[in-house]
Amino acid sequence: MISKADIKRIRALHDKKQRLSERLFLVEGEKMVAEALESGFEVVEVYRTDDIGEEAMERISQLSSPSPALAVVRMPAEPSASEIDALIASRPLCLALDCVRDPGNLGTIVRIADWFGIDAVFASRDTVELFNPKTVQATMGAIFRRRVIYCDLPAVAAQFAAAGMPVYGTFLDGKDIYREDLSSSGLIVMGSESNGIGAEMAERVTSRLYIPPYPRESAGSESLNVAIATAVTCALFRR
Amino acid sequence: MISKADIKRIRALHDKKQRLSERLFLVEGEKMVAEALESGFEVVEVYRTDDIGEEAMERISQLSSPSPALAVVRMPAEPSASEIDALIASRPLCLALDCVRDPGNLGTIVRIADWFGIDAVFASRDTVELFNPKTVQATMGAIFRRRVIYCDLPAVAAQFAAAGMPVYGTFLDGKDIYREDLSSSGLIVMGSESNGIGAEMAERVTSRLYIPPYPRESAGSESLNVAIATAVTCALFRR
Repeated sequence: MISKADIKRIRALHDKKQRLSERLFLVEGEKMVAEALESGFEVVEVYRTDDIGEEAMERISQLSSPSPALAVVRMPAEPSASEIDALIASRPLCLALDCVRDPGNLGTIVRIADWFGIDAVFASRDTVELFNPKTVQATMGAIFRRRVIYCDLPAVAAQFAAAGMPVYGTFLDGKDIYREDLSSSGLIVMGSESNGIGAEMAERVTSRLYIPPYPRESAGSESLNVAIATAVTCALFRR
Repeated sequence: MISKADIKRIRALHDKKQRLSERLFLVEGEKMVAEALESGFEVVEVYRTDDIGEEAMERISQLSSPSPALAVVRMPAEPSASEIDALIASRPLCLALDCVRDPGNLGTIVRIADWFGIDAVFASRDTVELFNPKTVQATMGAIFRRRVIYCDLPAVAAQFAAAGMPVYGTFLDGKDIYREDLSSSGLIVMGSESNGIGAEMAERVTSRLYIPPYPRESAGSESLNVAIATAVTCALFRR
Protein backbone atom coordinates (compact mmCIF):
# COMPACT_ATOMS: atom_id res chain seq x y z
CA MET A 1 0.00 0.00 0.00
CA ILE A 2 1.00 3.57 -0.62
CA SER A 3 -0.72 6.77 0.47
CA LYS A 4 -1.54 9.78 -1.72
CA ALA A 5 0.91 11.80 0.37
CA ASP A 6 3.67 9.24 -0.34
CA ILE A 7 2.95 9.35 -4.05
CA LYS A 8 3.16 13.14 -3.98
CA ARG A 9 6.39 13.08 -1.97
CA ILE A 10 8.05 10.58 -4.31
CA ARG A 11 6.86 12.33 -7.46
CA ALA A 12 8.44 15.50 -6.11
CA LEU A 13 11.80 13.71 -6.40
CA HIS A 14 11.39 13.70 -10.19
CA ASP A 15 12.48 17.31 -9.87
CA LYS A 16 16.18 18.09 -9.54
CA LYS A 17 15.75 20.91 -7.02
CA GLN A 18 13.67 18.71 -4.76
CA ARG A 19 16.17 15.82 -5.03
CA LEU A 20 19.05 18.07 -4.07
CA SER A 21 17.17 19.69 -1.20
CA GLU A 22 15.99 16.32 0.24
CA ARG A 23 19.26 14.60 -0.73
CA LEU A 24 17.19 11.65 -1.97
CA PHE A 25 16.97 10.08 -5.44
CA LEU A 26 15.05 7.30 -7.16
CA VAL A 27 16.40 3.98 -8.38
CA GLU A 28 14.25 1.81 -10.67
CA GLY A 29 14.41 -1.76 -11.93
CA GLU A 30 14.72 -5.04 -10.02
CA LYS A 31 18.43 -5.29 -10.68
CA MET A 32 19.23 -1.69 -9.79
CA VAL A 33 17.14 -1.87 -6.61
CA ALA A 34 18.91 -5.11 -5.63
CA GLU A 35 22.26 -3.42 -6.21
CA ALA A 36 21.17 -0.44 -4.07
CA LEU A 37 20.21 -2.80 -1.24
CA GLU A 38 23.58 -4.57 -1.40
CA SER A 39 25.52 -1.31 -1.59
CA GLY A 40 26.67 0.99 1.18
CA PHE A 41 23.96 3.49 0.21
CA GLU A 42 21.04 4.03 2.57
CA VAL A 43 17.85 2.72 0.96
CA VAL A 44 15.03 4.66 2.61
CA GLU A 45 12.04 2.91 1.01
CA VAL A 46 11.34 0.23 -1.58
CA TYR A 47 8.08 -0.03 -3.52
CA ARG A 48 7.02 -2.99 -5.65
CA THR A 49 4.18 -3.16 -8.17
CA ASP A 50 3.06 -6.37 -6.42
CA ASP A 51 2.36 -4.32 -3.27
CA ILE A 52 1.19 -0.94 -4.50
CA GLY A 53 -0.41 -1.79 -7.85
CA GLU A 54 0.44 -0.73 -11.38
CA GLU A 55 -1.39 2.57 -11.27
CA ALA A 56 0.53 3.82 -8.22
CA MET A 57 3.82 2.59 -9.72
CA GLU A 58 3.13 4.50 -12.92
CA ARG A 59 2.61 7.65 -10.87
CA ILE A 60 5.83 7.40 -8.88
CA SER A 61 8.00 6.05 -11.72
CA GLN A 62 10.20 8.27 -13.89
CA LEU A 63 10.26 5.68 -16.69
CA SER A 64 7.92 5.56 -19.65
CA SER A 65 7.53 1.83 -18.97
CA PRO A 66 7.63 1.46 -15.17
CA SER A 67 9.62 -1.46 -13.78
CA PRO A 68 8.35 -3.71 -10.95
CA ALA A 69 10.54 -2.06 -8.28
CA LEU A 70 11.48 1.46 -7.20
CA ALA A 71 13.67 2.55 -4.31
CA VAL A 72 14.13 5.91 -2.62
CA VAL A 73 17.84 6.16 -1.86
CA ARG A 74 19.81 8.71 0.15
CA MET A 75 22.60 10.56 -1.65
CA PRO A 76 25.96 9.95 0.00
CA ALA A 77 27.50 12.87 1.87
CA GLU A 78 29.82 15.00 -0.22
CA PRO A 79 33.46 14.33 0.67
CA SER A 80 35.18 16.96 2.80
CA ALA A 81 38.27 18.83 1.60
CA SER A 82 40.45 16.64 3.81
CA GLU A 83 38.91 13.47 2.33
CA ILE A 84 39.73 14.79 -1.14
CA ASP A 85 43.27 15.60 0.03
CA ALA A 86 43.65 12.03 1.34
CA LEU A 87 42.30 10.59 -1.93
CA ILE A 88 44.81 12.60 -3.98
CA ALA A 89 47.64 11.71 -1.59
CA SER A 90 46.91 8.01 -2.28
CA ARG A 91 48.14 8.65 -5.88
CA PRO A 92 44.95 7.50 -7.60
CA LEU A 93 44.00 7.40 -11.27
CA CYS A 94 40.94 9.65 -11.63
CA LEU A 95 38.76 11.17 -14.30
CA ALA A 96 37.88 14.88 -14.44
CA LEU A 97 34.74 15.81 -16.39
CA ASP A 98 34.72 19.38 -17.62
CA CYS A 99 31.08 20.26 -18.26
CA VAL A 100 29.65 16.95 -19.52
CA ARG A 101 26.03 17.82 -20.32
CA ASP A 102 24.32 14.63 -21.44
CA PRO A 103 22.86 12.48 -18.63
CA GLY A 104 23.41 9.24 -20.59
CA ASN A 105 27.04 10.12 -21.24
CA LEU A 106 27.66 10.79 -17.54
CA GLY A 107 26.05 7.49 -16.51
CA THR A 108 28.00 5.58 -19.15
CA ILE A 109 31.24 7.22 -17.98
CA VAL A 110 30.57 6.12 -14.37
CA ARG A 111 30.03 2.55 -15.67
CA ILE A 112 33.33 2.77 -17.60
CA ALA A 113 35.11 4.11 -14.49
CA ASP A 114 33.80 1.13 -12.56
CA TRP A 115 34.97 -1.40 -15.16
CA PHE A 116 38.43 0.09 -15.51
CA GLY A 117 39.02 0.68 -11.80
CA ILE A 118 39.16 4.46 -11.99
CA ASP A 119 39.42 5.52 -8.35
CA ALA A 120 37.05 8.49 -8.52
CA VAL A 121 35.39 10.80 -11.01
CA PHE A 122 35.70 14.55 -10.40
CA ALA A 123 33.12 16.70 -12.16
CA SER A 124 32.90 20.43 -12.73
CA ARG A 125 29.90 22.05 -11.08
CA ASP A 126 28.32 22.65 -14.50
CA THR A 127 28.39 18.92 -15.30
CA VAL A 128 24.92 17.36 -15.47
CA GLU A 129 23.44 16.11 -12.18
CA LEU A 130 24.50 12.58 -11.20
CA PHE A 131 21.09 11.72 -9.73
CA ASN A 132 19.17 12.54 -12.91
CA PRO A 133 17.10 9.40 -13.67
CA LYS A 134 18.73 8.92 -17.08
CA THR A 135 22.17 9.09 -15.50
CA VAL A 136 21.29 6.71 -12.66
CA GLN A 137 19.90 4.12 -15.11
CA ALA A 138 22.85 4.46 -17.51
CA THR A 139 25.32 3.62 -14.72
CA MET A 140 23.77 0.12 -14.53
CA GLY A 141 24.59 0.05 -10.81
CA ALA A 142 28.08 1.55 -11.03
CA ILE A 143 26.71 4.65 -9.24
CA PHE A 144 26.81 2.58 -6.03
CA ARG A 145 30.48 1.72 -6.48
CA ARG A 146 32.22 4.81 -7.89
CA ARG A 147 32.37 8.26 -6.31
CA VAL A 148 31.48 11.25 -8.46
CA ILE A 149 32.74 14.40 -6.75
CA TYR A 150 31.46 17.78 -7.92
CA CYS A 151 34.19 20.29 -7.25
CA ASP A 152 36.29 23.22 -8.39
CA LEU A 153 37.92 21.21 -11.18
CA PRO A 154 40.92 23.49 -11.92
CA ALA A 155 41.79 23.50 -8.20
CA VAL A 156 41.71 19.67 -8.10
CA ALA A 157 43.87 19.51 -11.24
CA ALA A 158 46.34 21.87 -9.54
CA GLN A 159 46.44 19.52 -6.53
CA PHE A 160 47.30 16.54 -8.76
CA ALA A 161 50.05 18.55 -10.44
CA ALA A 162 51.40 19.81 -7.11
CA ALA A 163 51.61 16.20 -5.93
CA GLY A 164 53.79 15.42 -8.95
CA MET A 165 51.13 13.53 -10.92
CA PRO A 166 50.37 14.14 -14.60
CA VAL A 167 47.16 15.84 -15.72
CA TYR A 168 46.14 14.31 -19.06
CA GLY A 169 43.71 15.67 -21.61
CA THR A 170 42.80 14.77 -25.20
CA PHE A 171 43.30 17.42 -27.87
CA LEU A 172 43.53 17.40 -31.66
CA ASP A 173 47.19 18.46 -31.40
CA GLY A 174 48.01 15.94 -28.64
CA LYS A 175 50.48 13.07 -28.82
CA ASP A 176 49.43 9.65 -30.14
CA ILE A 177 47.95 7.92 -27.07
CA TYR A 178 49.00 4.49 -28.36
CA ARG A 179 52.67 5.48 -28.20
CA GLU A 180 52.74 7.39 -24.92
CA ASP A 181 53.90 5.96 -21.65
CA LEU A 182 50.77 6.32 -19.53
CA SER A 183 51.08 6.73 -15.77
CA SER A 184 49.23 4.51 -13.29
CA SER A 185 48.25 7.60 -11.32
CA GLY A 186 47.07 11.02 -12.35
CA LEU A 187 44.05 12.90 -13.60
CA ILE A 188 42.47 12.37 -17.04
CA VAL A 189 40.42 15.38 -18.16
CA MET A 190 37.49 14.83 -20.54
CA GLY A 191 35.68 17.79 -22.08
CA SER A 192 32.10 18.64 -22.89
CA GLU A 193 30.16 17.20 -25.84
CA SER A 194 30.11 20.46 -27.77
CA ASN A 195 33.25 22.34 -26.78
CA GLY A 196 35.78 19.81 -25.51
CA ILE A 197 38.04 20.85 -22.64
CA GLY A 198 37.53 24.47 -21.56
CA ALA A 199 40.34 27.03 -21.60
CA GLU A 200 40.83 27.05 -17.83
CA MET A 201 41.21 23.24 -17.60
CA ALA A 202 43.31 23.13 -20.79
CA GLU A 203 45.88 25.30 -19.00
CA ARG A 204 46.11 22.72 -16.22
CA VAL A 205 46.82 19.82 -18.57
CA THR A 206 50.45 18.72 -18.39
CA SER A 207 50.26 15.92 -20.98
CA ARG A 208 48.23 16.39 -24.18
CA LEU A 209 47.02 13.17 -25.77
CA TYR A 210 45.17 12.30 -28.99
CA ILE A 211 43.25 9.17 -30.02
CA PRO A 212 44.19 8.96 -33.70
CA PRO A 213 41.66 7.91 -36.31
CA TYR A 214 42.46 5.15 -38.81
CA PRO A 215 44.01 5.75 -41.20
CA ARG A 216 45.76 8.58 -39.35
CA GLU A 217 45.32 11.22 -42.03
CA SER A 218 41.73 10.79 -42.95
CA ALA A 219 39.05 10.76 -40.31
CA GLY A 220 35.68 11.51 -41.80
CA SER A 221 34.23 12.12 -38.37
CA GLU A 222 35.46 15.15 -36.50
CA SER A 223 35.46 13.53 -33.11
CA LEU A 224 34.44 10.68 -30.88
CA ASN A 225 31.58 10.91 -28.39
CA VAL A 226 32.92 11.84 -24.92
CA ALA A 227 31.91 8.50 -23.36
CA ILE A 228 33.57 6.62 -26.24
CA ALA A 229 36.76 8.68 -25.90
CA THR A 230 36.73 8.05 -22.14
CA ALA A 231 36.43 4.29 -22.67
CA VAL A 232 39.28 4.12 -25.16
CA THR A 233 41.47 6.28 -22.93
CA CYS A 234 40.73 4.27 -19.77
CA ALA A 235 41.35 0.97 -21.60
CA LEU A 236 44.75 2.21 -22.79
CA PHE A 237 45.70 3.38 -19.30
CA ARG A 238 44.74 -0.05 -17.91
CA ARG A 239 46.00 -2.37 -20.64
CA MET B 1 6.61 27.19 -48.77
CA ILE B 2 5.33 23.71 -48.14
CA SER B 3 1.94 22.21 -48.97
CA LYS B 4 -0.30 20.23 -46.64
CA ALA B 5 0.26 17.21 -48.86
CA ASP B 6 4.05 17.59 -48.49
CA ILE B 7 3.74 17.82 -44.72
CA LYS B 8 1.65 14.67 -44.67
CA ARG B 9 4.07 12.84 -46.97
CA ILE B 10 7.11 13.79 -44.86
CA ARG B 11 5.37 13.01 -41.57
CA ALA B 12 4.64 9.54 -42.95
CA LEU B 13 8.42 8.98 -43.00
CA HIS B 14 8.43 9.13 -39.19
CA ASP B 15 7.11 5.60 -39.50
CA LYS B 16 9.57 2.76 -40.12
CA LYS B 17 7.33 0.83 -42.53
CA GLN B 18 6.80 3.90 -44.66
CA ARG B 19 10.53 4.72 -44.68
CA LEU B 20 11.40 1.23 -45.83
CA SER B 21 8.70 1.13 -48.48
CA GLU B 22 9.63 4.58 -49.90
CA ARG B 23 13.34 3.99 -49.28
CA LEU B 24 13.57 7.55 -47.93
CA PHE B 25 14.63 8.84 -44.52
CA LEU B 26 14.91 12.16 -42.72
CA VAL B 27 18.06 13.98 -41.70
CA GLU B 28 17.85 16.93 -39.31
CA GLY B 29 20.19 19.67 -38.18
CA GLU B 30 22.23 22.16 -40.19
CA LYS B 31 25.41 20.14 -39.87
CA MET B 32 23.83 16.78 -40.72
CA VAL B 33 21.99 18.27 -43.71
CA ALA B 34 25.25 19.85 -44.93
CA GLU B 35 26.97 16.46 -44.60
CA ALA B 36 24.14 14.79 -46.53
CA LEU B 37 24.52 17.34 -49.35
CA GLU B 38 28.28 16.74 -49.54
CA SER B 39 27.90 12.96 -49.42
CA GLY B 40 27.21 10.51 -52.22
CA PHE B 41 23.64 10.11 -50.96
CA GLU B 42 20.77 11.49 -53.03
CA VAL B 43 19.16 14.40 -51.17
CA VAL B 44 15.61 14.58 -52.50
CA GLU B 45 14.40 17.71 -50.71
CA VAL B 46 15.66 20.21 -48.15
CA TYR B 47 13.39 22.31 -45.95
CA ARG B 48 14.49 25.26 -43.82
CA THR B 49 12.56 27.01 -41.08
CA ASP B 50 13.42 30.30 -42.81
CA ASP B 51 11.37 29.18 -45.82
CA ILE B 52 8.52 27.12 -44.40
CA GLY B 53 8.06 28.68 -40.96
CA GLU B 54 8.39 27.21 -37.49
CA GLU B 55 4.96 25.66 -37.36
CA ALA B 56 5.49 23.58 -40.50
CA MET B 57 8.97 22.57 -39.34
CA GLU B 58 7.55 21.38 -36.03
CA ARG B 59 5.09 19.20 -37.93
CA ILE B 60 7.63 17.53 -40.21
CA SER B 61 10.41 17.24 -37.61
CA GLN B 62 11.03 14.11 -35.57
CA LEU B 63 12.87 16.06 -32.88
CA SER B 64 11.32 17.45 -29.72
CA SER B 65 13.20 20.69 -30.48
CA PRO B 66 13.18 21.04 -34.27
CA SER B 67 16.37 22.24 -35.92
CA PRO B 68 16.46 24.89 -38.68
CA ALA B 69 16.97 22.32 -41.47
CA LEU B 70 15.54 18.98 -42.54
CA ALA B 71 16.38 16.86 -45.57
CA VAL B 72 14.60 13.95 -47.20
CA VAL B 73 17.34 11.55 -48.27
CA ARG B 74 17.21 8.39 -50.37
CA MET B 75 18.51 5.21 -48.77
CA PRO B 76 21.41 3.72 -50.72
CA ALA B 77 20.73 0.53 -52.65
CA GLU B 78 21.48 -2.62 -50.68
CA PRO B 79 24.68 -4.23 -51.92
CA SER B 80 24.31 -7.30 -54.11
CA ALA B 81 25.74 -10.68 -53.13
CA SER B 82 28.60 -10.17 -55.58
CA GLU B 83 29.39 -6.76 -54.08
CA ILE B 84 29.55 -8.41 -50.65
CA ASP B 85 31.79 -11.13 -52.08
CA ALA B 86 34.10 -8.46 -53.53
CA LEU B 87 34.18 -6.61 -50.20
CA ILE B 88 35.16 -9.78 -48.33
CA ALA B 89 37.72 -10.68 -50.99
CA SER B 90 39.43 -7.31 -50.35
CA ARG B 91 40.34 -8.66 -46.86
CA PRO B 92 38.64 -5.86 -44.89
CA LEU B 93 38.27 -5.33 -41.16
CA CYS B 94 34.52 -5.32 -40.47
CA LEU B 95 32.11 -5.30 -37.57
CA ALA B 96 29.19 -7.74 -37.25
CA LEU B 97 26.32 -6.67 -35.00
CA ASP B 98 24.27 -9.57 -33.66
CA CYS B 99 20.91 -8.10 -32.69
CA VAL B 100 21.86 -4.65 -31.40
CA ARG B 101 18.54 -3.20 -30.26
CA ASP B 102 19.19 0.33 -29.07
CA PRO B 103 19.06 3.01 -31.81
CA GLY B 104 21.58 5.22 -30.00
CA ASN B 105 24.03 2.33 -29.66
CA LEU B 106 23.79 1.53 -33.38
CA GLY B 107 24.39 5.16 -34.34
CA THR B 108 27.32 5.46 -31.96
CA ILE B 109 28.81 2.24 -33.37
CA VAL B 110 28.62 3.63 -36.92
CA ARG B 111 30.43 6.76 -35.69
CA ILE B 112 33.10 4.56 -34.06
CA ALA B 113 33.44 2.51 -37.26
CA ASP B 114 34.01 5.73 -39.17
CA TRP B 115 36.68 6.99 -36.76
CA PHE B 116 38.59 3.73 -36.67
CA GLY B 117 38.37 3.01 -40.40
CA ILE B 118 36.23 -0.11 -40.11
CA ASP B 119 35.49 -1.00 -43.73
CA ALA B 120 31.84 -1.97 -43.25
CA VAL B 121 29.35 -2.90 -40.57
CA PHE B 122 27.31 -6.07 -41.08
CA ALA B 123 24.12 -6.31 -39.04
CA SER B 124 21.76 -9.19 -38.34
CA ARG B 125 18.26 -8.63 -39.68
CA ASP B 126 16.95 -8.27 -36.11
CA THR B 127 19.30 -5.36 -35.43
CA VAL B 128 17.49 -2.04 -34.99
CA GLU B 129 16.78 -0.05 -38.19
CA LEU B 130 19.65 2.17 -39.36
CA PHE B 131 17.30 4.94 -40.54
CA ASN B 132 15.56 5.33 -37.19
CA PRO B 133 15.86 9.05 -36.35
CA LYS B 134 17.75 8.38 -33.11
CA THR B 135 20.26 6.23 -34.97
CA VAL B 136 20.72 8.74 -37.78
CA GLN B 137 21.36 11.57 -35.32
CA ALA B 138 23.73 9.47 -33.17
CA THR B 139 25.96 8.77 -36.19
CA MET B 140 26.80 12.49 -36.35
CA GLY B 141 27.15 12.17 -40.12
CA ALA B 142 29.07 8.88 -40.17
CA ILE B 143 25.96 7.27 -41.73
CA PHE B 144 27.00 8.96 -45.00
CA ARG B 145 30.48 7.45 -44.90
CA ARG B 146 30.13 3.88 -43.59
CA ARG B 147 28.06 1.07 -45.06
CA VAL B 148 25.75 -0.86 -42.75
CA ILE B 149 24.71 -4.08 -44.46
CA TYR B 150 21.77 -6.06 -43.09
CA CYS B 151 22.39 -9.69 -43.91
CA ASP B 152 22.40 -13.33 -42.88
CA LEU B 153 25.15 -12.76 -40.30
CA PRO B 154 26.25 -16.41 -39.77
CA ALA B 155 26.61 -16.82 -43.54
CA VAL B 156 28.82 -13.72 -43.75
CA ALA B 157 30.92 -14.98 -40.81
CA ALA B 158 31.33 -18.28 -42.65
CA GLN B 159 32.55 -16.38 -45.72
CA PHE B 160 35.21 -14.57 -43.68
CA ALA B 161 36.35 -17.88 -42.18
CA ALA B 162 36.37 -19.59 -45.59
CA ALA B 163 38.60 -16.78 -46.89
CA GLY B 164 41.07 -17.56 -44.08
CA MET B 165 40.26 -14.52 -41.96
CA PRO B 166 39.61 -14.64 -38.21
CA VAL B 167 36.14 -14.12 -36.75
CA TYR B 168 36.53 -12.38 -33.39
CA GLY B 169 34.01 -12.08 -30.59
CA THR B 170 34.14 -10.93 -26.96
CA PHE B 171 33.19 -13.43 -24.26
CA LEU B 172 33.72 -13.66 -20.51
CA ASP B 173 35.98 -16.68 -21.07
CA GLY B 174 37.90 -15.10 -23.96
CA LYS B 175 41.59 -14.27 -24.10
CA ASP B 176 42.93 -10.95 -22.80
CA ILE B 177 42.51 -8.59 -25.77
CA TYR B 178 45.52 -6.52 -24.68
CA ARG B 179 47.83 -9.49 -25.13
CA GLU B 180 46.47 -10.96 -28.35
CA ASP B 181 47.97 -10.41 -31.76
CA LEU B 182 45.05 -8.76 -33.55
CA SER B 183 44.72 -9.15 -37.32
CA SER B 184 44.35 -6.21 -39.70
CA SER B 185 41.54 -8.05 -41.49
CA GLY B 186 38.64 -10.11 -40.24
CA LEU B 187 35.23 -9.83 -38.67
CA ILE B 188 34.58 -8.56 -35.13
CA VAL B 189 31.25 -9.77 -33.74
CA MET B 190 29.46 -7.67 -31.13
CA GLY B 191 26.39 -9.00 -29.32
CA SER B 192 23.10 -7.57 -28.18
CA GLU B 193 22.69 -5.33 -25.13
CA SER B 194 20.86 -7.97 -23.11
CA ASN B 195 22.16 -11.33 -24.31
CA GLY B 196 25.56 -10.78 -25.88
CA ILE B 197 26.49 -12.88 -28.90
CA GLY B 198 23.82 -15.44 -29.82
CA ALA B 199 24.52 -19.18 -29.96
CA GLU B 200 24.57 -19.37 -33.75
CA MET B 201 27.11 -16.57 -34.13
CA ALA B 202 29.14 -17.80 -31.16
CA GLU B 203 29.74 -21.03 -33.09
CA ARG B 204 31.21 -19.02 -35.96
CA VAL B 205 33.73 -17.19 -33.78
CA THR B 206 37.25 -18.47 -34.30
CA SER B 207 39.01 -16.18 -31.80
CA ARG B 208 37.40 -15.44 -28.42
CA LEU B 209 38.51 -12.18 -26.81
CA TYR B 210 37.86 -10.48 -23.48
CA ILE B 211 38.28 -6.86 -22.38
CA PRO B 212 39.49 -7.37 -18.81
CA PRO B 213 38.33 -5.09 -16.02
CA TYR B 214 40.84 -3.44 -13.70
CA PRO B 215 41.94 -4.93 -11.42
CA ARG B 216 41.49 -8.17 -13.32
CA GLU B 217 39.80 -10.10 -10.54
CA SER B 218 37.27 -7.63 -9.33
CA ALA B 219 34.91 -5.92 -11.69
CA GLY B 220 31.91 -4.53 -9.86
CA SER B 221 30.09 -4.08 -13.16
CA GLU B 222 29.12 -7.19 -15.05
CA SER B 223 29.74 -5.79 -18.47
CA LEU B 224 30.44 -2.82 -20.68
CA ASN B 225 27.80 -1.23 -22.90
CA VAL B 226 28.01 -2.66 -26.46
CA ALA B 227 29.07 0.66 -28.02
CA ILE B 228 31.76 1.07 -25.37
CA ALA B 229 33.05 -2.47 -25.92
CA THR B 230 33.06 -1.83 -29.68
CA ALA B 231 35.11 1.34 -29.23
CA VAL B 232 37.72 -0.31 -27.02
CA THR B 233 37.97 -3.28 -29.38
CA CYS B 234 38.31 -1.14 -32.52
CA ALA B 235 40.93 1.09 -30.85
CA LEU B 236 43.01 -1.98 -29.93
CA PHE B 237 42.75 -3.38 -33.46
CA ARG B 238 43.90 -0.02 -34.86
CA ARG B 239 46.55 0.99 -32.33
